[in-house]
Amino acid sequence: MELKFDEKGLIPAVVQDIDTREVLMVAYMNEESLKKSLETGQTWFYSRSRNALWHKGETSGNIQEIVEIRYDCDADCLLIKVKQKGVACHTGNYSCFYRTLWEGKGEREDLEEVLAKLWQIILD
Amino acid sequence: MELKFDEKGLIPAVVQDIDTREVLMVAYMNEESLKKSLETGQTWFYSRSRNALWHKGETSGNIQEIVEIRYDCDADCLLIKVKQKGVACHTGNYSCFYRTLWEGKGEREDLEEVLAKLWQIILD
Repeated sequence: MELKFDEKGLIPAVVQDIDTREVLMVAYMNEESLKKSLETGQTWFYSRSRNALWHKGETSGNIQEIVEIRYDCDADCLLIKVKQKGVACHTGNYSCFYRTLWEGKGEREDLEEVLAKLWQIILD
Repeated sequence: MELKFDEKGLIPAVVQDIDTREVLMVAYMNEESLKKSLETGQTWFYSRSRNALWHKGETSGNIQEIVEIRYDCDADCLLIKVKQKGVACHTGNYSCFYRTLWEGKGEREDLEEVLAKLWQIILD
């Protein structure tokens, strides 16, 4: 398996709460920050604005303990399942995706169906 | 609100199953594909390899009905919650993230705690 880093040497990483399955944030890793993440079991990213490695939670204490890292079919994106300490977003929100852009007409399944799916998740 | 498209005019979009909360895929949108998505209520992306708009599921039938679009604190990433028809990945897997790169030492919470959180999700 060879991960594909882009022309800037970066790969996007989706960070997801392992328990609630909420998507918390998307950040970028370079090879060094991925190595640091694997070594420490906590998320390290590459800050594109500061051009520097960034140990998530180092100053805020809002560390992310990595439970699992998955990668996609094209090997150009990571999915990092974590246990989040505190909140993920620098705004104080739990997830960085706290704002709604658009709501469609799609209906959610009824509660019984959702419960059946959740039960399947629990059994997995 | 002004979404930030990158220097290529693209914004990454994380696609998540609204019911199971599984992360299905990450793809890219340009302004036109986002507009098409809003108009049709189904996902349209911009294919970086084919340099063309791409209506997800047009040939396979594996359409994604958009329930909600959220955007992050930096306004440079989208989270699209969908109802997935069939599977999301061209490999036939439900999610594109079907492979594990690394498993950490982090422990999952015990079942009781997970159930309490799931219940909270259901009530939300």
